[in-house]
Amino acid sequence: MLAEIKGLNEECGVFGIWGHPDAAQITYYGLHSLQHRGQEGTGIVVTDGDNLKGLKGEGLVTEVFQEGSLDPLQGNGAIGHVRYATAGGGGYDNVQPLLFHSQSGGLALAHNGNLVNANALKHQLEQQGSIFQTSSDTEVLAHLIKRSGYTSFKDRVKNALTMLKGAYAFLIMTETEMMIALDPNGLRPLSIGKLGDAYCVASETCAFDIIGAEFVRDVEPGELIMISDEGLKSERFTVSSGCSMCTMEYVYFSRPDSNIQGINVHSARKRMGVQLAKEAPIEADVVTGVPDSSISSAIGYAEASGIPYELGLIKNRYVGRTFIQPSQELREQGVKMKLSPVRGVVEGKRVVMVDDSIVRGTTSRRIVSMLKAAGAKEVHVCISSPPIKNPCFYGIDTSTHEELIASSHSVEEMREIIGADSLTFLSVEGTLEAVGRKDPSENRGQCLACFTGKYPTEIYPDTLHPYEKELVR
Amino acid sequence: MLAEIKGLNEECGVFGIWGHPDAAQITYYGLHSLQHRGQEGTGIVVTDGDNLKGLKGEGLVTEVFQEGSLDPLQGNGAIGHVRYATAGGGGYDNVQPLLFHSQSGGLALAHNGNLVNANALKHQLEQQGSIFQTSSDTEVLAHLIKRSGYTSFKDRVKNALTMLKGAYAFLIMTETEMMIALDPNGLRPLSIGKLGDAYCVASETCAFDIIGAEFVRDVEPGELIMISDEGLKSERFTVSSGCSMCTMEYVYFSRPDSNIQGINVHSARKRMGVQLAKEAPIEADVVTGVPDSSISSAIGYAEASGIPYELGLIKNRYVGRTFIQPSQELREQGVKMKLSPVRGVVEGKRVVMVDDSIVRGTTSRRIVSMLKAAGAKEVHVCISSPPIKNPCFYGIDTSTHEELIASSHSVEEMREIIGADSLTFLSVEGTLEAVGRKDPSENRGQCLACFTGKYPTEIYPDTLHPYEKELVR
Amino acid sequence: MLAEIKGLNEECGVFGIWGHPDAAQITYYGLHSLQHRGQEGTGIVVTDGDNLKGLKGEGLVTEVFQEGSLDPLQGNGAIGHVRYATAGGGGYDNVQPLLFHSQSGGLALAHNGNLVNANALKHQLEQQGSIFQTSSDTEVLAHLIKRSGYTSFKDRVKNALTMLKGAYAFLIMTETEMMIALDPNGLRPLSIGKLGDAYCVASETCAFDIIGAEFVRDVEPGELIMISDEGLKSERFTVSSGCSMCTMEYVYFSRPDSNIQGINVHSARKRMGVQLAKEAPIEADVVTGVPDSSISSAIGYAEASGIPYELGLIKNRYVGRTFIQPSQELREQGVKMKLSPVRGVVEGKRVVMVDDSIVRGTTSRRIVSMLKAAGAKEVHVCISSPPIKNPCFYGIDTSTHEELIASSHSVEEMREIIGADSLTFLSVEGTLEAVGRKDPSENRGQCLACFTGKYPTEIYPDTLHPYEKELVR
Amino acid sequence: MLAEIKGLNEECGVFGIWGHPDAAQITYYGLHSLQHRGQEGTGIVVTDGDNLKGLKGEGLVTEVFQEGSLDPLQGNGAIGHVRYATAGGGGYDNVQPLLFHSQSGGLALAHNGNLVNANALKHQLEQQGSIFQTSSDTEVLAHLIKRSGYTSFKDRVKNALTMLKGAYAFLIMTETEMMIALDPNGLRPLSIGKLGDAYCVASETCAFDIIGAEFVRDVEPGELIMISDEGLKSERFTVSSGCSMCTMEYVYFSRPDSNIQGINVHSARKRMGVQLAKEAPIEADVVTGVPDSSISSAIGYAEASGIPYELGLIKNRYVGRTFIQPSQELREQGVKMKLSPVRGVVEGKRVVMVDDSIVRGTTSRRIVSMLKAAGAKEVHVCISSPPIKNPCFYGIDTSTHEELIASSHSVEEMREIIGADSLTFLSVEGTLEAVGRKDPSENRGQCLACFTGKYPTEIYPDTLHPYEKELVR
Repeated sequence: MLAEIKGLNEECGVFGIWGHPDAAQITYYGLHSLQHRGQEGTGIVVTDGDNLKGLKGEGLVTEVFQEGSLDPLQGNGAIGHVRYATAGGGGYDNVQPLLFHSQSGGLALAHNGNLVNANALKHQLEQQGSIFQTSSDTEVLAHLIKRSGYTSFKDRVKNALTMLKGAYAFLIMTETEMMIALDPNGLRPLSIGKLGDAYCVASETCAFDIIGAEFVRDVEPGELIMISDEGLKSERFTVSSGCSMCTMEYVYFSRPDSNIQGINVHSARKRMGVQLAKEAPIEADVVTGVPDSSISSAIGYAEASGIPYELGLIKNRYVGRTFIQPSQELREQGVKMKLSPVRGVVEGKRVVMVDDSIVRGTTSRRIVSMLKAAGAKEVHVCISSPPIKNPCFYGIDTSTHEELIASSHSVEEMREIIGADSLTFLSVEGTLEAVGRKDPSENRGQCLACFTGKYPTEIYPDTLHPYEKELVR
Repeated sequence: MLAEIKGLNEECGVFGIWGHPDAAQITYYGLHSLQHRGQEGTGIVVTDGDNLKGLKGEGLVTEVFQEGSLDPLQGNGAIGHVRYATAGGGGYDNVQPLLFHSQSGGLALAHNGNLVNANALKHQLEQQGSIFQTSSDTEVLAHLIKRSGYTSFKDRVKNALTMLKGAYAFLIMTETEMMIALDPNGLRPLSIGKLGDAYCVASETCAFDIIGAEFVRDVEPGELIMISDEGLKSERFTVSSGCSMCTMEYVYFSRPDSNIQGINVHSARKRMGVQLAKEAPIEADVVTGVPDSSISSAIGYAEASGIPYELGLIKNRYVGRTFIQPSQELREQGVKMKLSPVRGVVEGKRVVMVDDSIVRGTTSRRIVSMLKAAGAKEVHVCISSPPIKNPCFYGIDTSTHEELIASSHSVEEMREIIGADSLTFLSVEGTLEAVGRKDPSENRGQCLACFTGKYPTEIYPDTLHPYEKELVR
Repeated sequence: MLAEIKGLNEECGVFGIWGHPDAAQITYYGLHSLQHRGQEGTGIVVTDGDNLKGLKGEGLVTEVFQEGSLDPLQGNGAIGHVRYATAGGGGYDNVQPLLFHSQSGGLALAHNGNLVNANALKHQLEQQGSIFQTSSDTEVLAHLIKRSGYTSFKDRVKNALTMLKGAYAFLIMTETEMMIALDPNGLRPLSIGKLGDAYCVASETCAFDIIGAEFVRDVEPGELIMISDEGLKSERFTVSSGCSMCTMEYVYFSRPDSNIQGINVHSARKRMGVQLAKEAPIEADVVTGVPDSSISSAIGYAEASGIPYELGLIKNRYVGRTFIQPSQELREQGVKMKLSPVRGVVEGKRVVMVDDSIVRGTTSRRIVSMLKAAGAKEVHVCISSPPIKNPCFYGIDTSTHEELIASSHSVEEMREIIGADSLTFLSVEGTLEAVGRKDPSENRGQCLACFTGKYPTEIYPDTLHPYEKELVR
Repeated sequence: MLAEIKGLNEECGVFGIWGHPDAAQITYYGLHSLQHRGQEGTGIVVTDGDNLKGLKGEGLVTEVFQEGSLDPLQGNGAIGHVRYATAGGGGYDNVQPLLFHSQSGGLALAHNGNLVNANALKHQLEQQGSIFQTSSDTEVLAHLIKRSGYTSFKDRVKNALTMLKGAYAFLIMTETEMMIALDPNGLRPLSIGKLGDAYCVASETCAFDIIGAEFVRDVEPGELIMISDEGLKSERFTVSSGCSMCTMEYVYFSRPDSNIQGINVHSARKRMGVQLAKEAPIEADVVTGVPDSSISSAIGYAEASGIPYELGLIKNRYVGRTFIQPSQELREQGVKMKLSPVRGVVEGKRVVMVDDSIVRGTTSRRIVSMLKAAGAKEVHVCISSPPIKNPCFYGIDTSTHEELIASSHSVEEMREIIGADSLTFLSVEGTLEAVGRKDPSENRGQCLACFTGKYPTEIYPDTLHPYEKELVR
């Protein structure tokens, strides 16, 4: 929900399981724990060994799947997907898993991430006679597999993957097999778990905890894993380009109970808050965090600074799709929606307000102004990550420089715009330090492109085709 | 949501406004902020000076009222109600406000609390020929007003109120007037606010913050307030028996951003945590709270004890009415629903788990066992209120001694049942101390009946009629 | 559906069964067959011997009751109701059966007809302290039963019935008994059937055919029938005033497969057509009827006149609540909704268009104009009943003289308004003749008040209270 | 609805309009009038000159399109489709119009009929790398157009059409043009109309009457019509093989108010009844038809035989998707669903029951048994078409010989199975005679394959692929 406020949207989460008699139900609970990664739509495809059957729809997991709707999805293997929340769109067709039938068998695809050369590939494929049913980049993979000259399915998949550039965590399922592929940079998280004898795979480890599965290991960049009734096999479809895990997964996207590459997200966030208190010591009376994602860093800040942590902002639960938005008039009269300040806590106080990031600045401005209206004497905004100056092309919805306030404003200008008494960002080094590496000898790098502009892959922003832009929005 | 887990359910919240052109919309936002007080059903009645019009239904505020459904509710005065979540229901008829039409005019009623002599009154009224349409105790007031011998409406209302015993915060609305009545013990919270020139009234002050209104004052026990286009007048229908505010409002029910009798709920909770750390110092590695209601006290405990506060438990959002419950089998395989432990935080640690209260003990047992399964070395349960040994007859859904584990077990027995390494409750004195009084000279007492068994009013538990018991459950 | 076009609406149908293990399901099918008598709302109340349980809602039988929704309605006795379609409503509260709970037991009521002294009775009851929850006249009976001084339930019911004036077919159910009462004039149809050992009762005999029950006999005017596990007993609560069956039941309301007082409705209608052809011989090429209610009389006309019967008008099925109404502009461009003419049949022809009645005249005008636009050379409108000049106070929705074109216009004036080449009505005598009496010695009279103005009971039109008028509309 | 009973299902209806500002609305009304041709799903695609936008869904026209849902479909051109009702079926993906986006523009397809070589074409296309999203034969056309070597869109379409075999009435729409194609045998009806300056096209002329359009002419077999803002142009993509209009359109499928190739359907049916009375004179008391499709022929039979026509069978309206089906037990107790006999009409009578066709015989047996249970002394079944002995491969859902009772039983055997006193079929010659030709010099032949086994095209029944068979059912 806060995602909408902020303008930072993760593109999707995936979950799969192989070898469990209740594969669809388990996938339902897995997807439910990944709901924060996408609220636009969701789907599950299941195989009973002979046929692929799917159900998908627009909305939340609990909206699309209702009592009884999983009953027809019988089978031992399943993959599922949650899709991120856009304003208008994409529609039913783009909800994943995509499911293809052909006379030689079925194919289901679930994808987290974003391909940077999808439009070029699409153009070529259409020239050769392919017809695309969706406006999603994911469908490209199906066509590449179909058209690959290789004989074995595995070789066709590997062949197809080599043509893709960008970020992708793919689940691919046929009637008899599940495949898992991660891009050579490992830009998006993807982990393997075990539930009894069944293998499972998820964008975040929190899904394993919810279903009672054990974490086994993370998928390696450039790895292709094949799971079937014969068990799990692993190959590489390419040499890893060196891991570049999205830093924003730690800062904002992932659930605090997930571990990404062995690092607990809540703990990383708390360390960011601690680091921030070191980098920016402030004299104040209370520390407060913007719920939900900044609670951990705010507590870290409070502990490190010795300033008491208080609930200065409350998030309204129950604000869903059907909430009647207040008219502009009522909004001006002071009707609040998603967040409200706690007057009893902030009145007359100097407040340190910890937030995880600033995208357009509008949310920060609104919160600062709320806190001041509720009587805060000073509001010091402390951001537990560096300024986001560059768009992400790997699956996060900040597509243009124009939308990013930090790309065109200094910190002081931003401070003035949001009306804070001070504004501090965590340094890039501090961020890396706070995330921490289990073992520096391992190749566990971070993607810092949105802060630094150094993208780990080539970028083809000019290939976006007009009709896709429109459909995507 | 957690309410369901715990078995402690508040019976309702009320909101009203008079003198605002968007009375129904404002009431919608007010009710939305009180949603935690009741999720079973909700309704709004509005007056345009000539007629009362209402809309109500079973479900959440955002489910009952959808885009456009408030449009027909035009008028300057409105009252609304949220009703607590029971399993089977009560049904549509019992959703409030109750709305009565007669040839001499309409009457709408919204009620928070519970009458203890409702059945005796009902019996008498039925003997005299009255027909009740609902199984709610609230309807009694309408019949008493109707049958009162007095001429003026105000006198009829006062006359009727004198026959009621128990807990009630009533909103009463006719075409031309809104009345507000609080029982002589002031058992439930009720506050007056102002939004521009309009008066508003709400069960909790958080509703004022959401709509941008100013807090004016709390309603006094035994007070009858009349609001019309002539303004606000106040009278007493009885001498106050001395205020006995429900202590559980501070401990558990109210939103942390509400102030009850001038005391901020979050701050009171934090003080409970502080007090608990003083009364029960424990050697441990991390402090964690059970979300959402125990976060404040856990933070207080952490600050006072110096043990770091961590996110050891995560609440699953999006678990609503339509969530597909896992089968017993899947549950035993470890599928979790509303809460999940954060392995990365608790593994190998000695954990202080702060919770607000224990009702049946089943939730505590489940959480302790989750934490241990996630690797916690020790789990010390610290409850930020005294043991609940006695049922509440004033509007909280703990109707029998049998359901209350503390009524028949010692603390040590409870500790064993829930499987904790230690179990501590806050003392009654510590609870009172932590809530705190703004001014001891004011008559600001607390109802402690569920802890001590000393009820501030007479109790007629034997008058509960079989059919009502059934319908209520 | 046509009902809406015409402005003639039956107020309700009732169905009940006692002694069948699937009482609710059987009632569902019974109500479904009576759906033409009311589309606004429907409900079923069932008794399992100890408790009354009900389910009701606004909409069609198939909308209110869905797969699974009858499951909780277990019991051997049930009554049900379908309510007529009004524009705005009446709302949920007025949907029947009405269900009342009291400490001495429950009471369910289902009513077809209209009381003419309901407002006077209501006024008196409210003076005595009664509160009405609905704006329906039906609720009066519950209050009268409640307040009756008699001891036995049967005597209370009889006592209450003596105070009612107007038209009523009542089904009354307690936990242990079903009662059936018909007004002393027998204005509305009501028949008893048997399904195995179970007794059933319905507004029309078509319900018996649908559920596979046998017709036993019609309920007598002024009769009170009591059905319980002891069997069926009959008493009279008053001497019959002489039967006055509503003639419009034959002409328009009832289903053609129903028998009313032993006379098949289709056959009666066909005889009306035959009689019409005798009274009004016309030179024409084709006879066509307005579907659905005038098909029988049109066929009768065709057979008697020797002019071939053709499908000159088609009714659009599937036009329900959710049909998107064409804008005025599209309507003027010729978009049709409920009826369309068959050009291939009427083009260049002299058409006899048989319809059952004219209320406001707007429908007739529209149909004549359609037929002419489709090429009909002449359109002769033949109405198989006399002009409706007077409002009905017994349960048919023609409440004012103003709405009835025949009350202020001559036949020639009407002909001109509707644009027909000729307009003929069946005579009152011809109507009676066509309906036919099985046995003239039996007291089987007809109510002809809407044609003749001779009402079989007193009428108190001035007692309608403003708020009721509003609510009713 | 009866379609379901009978097991004869038309596969779809199409409607299109070009040059009208309310294209989507008009299409909605057009589709609504074609609802009898398909109840499984429906969709509309509209063009505003730059983009194609569509909305489709499973269910009736009034279910898929609700108030407001047409608002986003702005544009001057639109095509729409209604899809036939299968039990499990086909799902959202197969609902038409199919809509394809590519970097060179969009393409929408609506199809009535069935291709007999779709599987062979699909196989070939998949070999070449095409991926099919639907299991419908319609999608083949899109891929053929896409892969055609020709440059101009018109040439590509013509080229693609030459590869198709079977029955098809196609509407093809791009952003700037609508194309209409009819198969060389003209197996399915398709007509052109005009609404003001706008051209429209529909499967049946009744759609023109509903929207107020004028009939212009029928589309010719092998004709390709192109409509754009430049007006209408016609070409031939092949020489017609001689028209073979499906005879069942006259007998059963089409609405009685439609004209097919200049012949009114009701009139043709009435002539079938007349012819039947000539071929099979029977001594009886009443004639009755099975509603709705056999009413016309029953009336014809009655007029020709002099036996009075009566309503002996009533169809229950309001039996939709959500109707709760009676349990087997209740069905055996006599609960009826779609049809019920009119006891008052048939009791003690010798009944001629006219029906249009017999597919599996189960419906006929049920109706005969109902009539006898209602007291009919004799039941003579007269079928207004010849025995259906052969499956249809052109878009009617009688896919196997096994399902067709007439393919393996003599008339006398069938009579015995259905329990009738006599059973008569109209002769093939009588059927042709009754349908009638406006002008024998015109090439207006009929397809009689289901009666005679003489198929007007090649048939490849063995090409049906397993997965398609399953999906289709």
